[in-house]
Amino acid sequence: MFTPACPSRVVLDHVMSKWGVLVLLALSDGTARWGELRRTVEGISEKMLASTLRTLERDGLVDRTSYPEVPPRVEYALTERGRELMQHMLPLMQWIAENATEMVGATEG
Amino acid sequence: MFTPACPSRVVLDHVMSKWGVLVLLALSDGTARWGELRRTVEGISEKMLASTLRTLERDGLVDRTSYPEVPPRVEYALTERGRELMQHMLPLMQWIAENATEMVGATEG
Repeated sequence: MFTPACPSRVVLDHVMSKWGVLVLLALSDGTARWGELRRTVEGISEKMLASTLRTLERDGLVDRTSYPEVPPRVEYALTERGRELMQHMLPLMQWIAENATEMVGATEG
Repeated sequence: MFTPACPSRVVLDHVMSKWGVLVLLALSDGTARWGELRRTVEGISEKMLASTLRTLERDGLVDRTSYPEVPPRVEYALTERGRELMQHMLPLMQWIAENATEMVGATEG
């Protein structure tokens, strides 16, 4: 994982980015549409959301389903692999949520 | 965690960065000196290593100990909180290591 060419490091780069984590987290509650993701992940730009979703799709973590409606409806959901990843990521997120206030306090101290 | 001002998101930004994760991982085997970290975390620049260590120190995850020797010896180690974080992060890293090759394959497919 310490070697730049190692696949683990490539995946780490995709998954362990702030936006990657937040988009995966937003989808861990279930299917969401583009606009819902934009609203849920506060502060993400259109461009960053598009690029994050594309990367997660390529890694086989997120599925994009387009429905031939007018206007077109596009939904995003975790794949089986994405759900497996989140099973490992959620305990970490939980720990961060529980400890963050104290840690940011440490920053200011 | 979705709100920019939330402490969880600040910590997420520090911890879930590619370099943050790799430095924490390098320290999870024990104390390391600057040069060891530079060699272990391949591709990290001097500047990025300095800034990553400073952020992790401020979050109370890494301890820096300076020994008054000639030449000065500086050692970095996980704090108790840092070790607790890694207990939650290692299962995720393990999963990524096991699945990365297949996922990067998916990228190219």
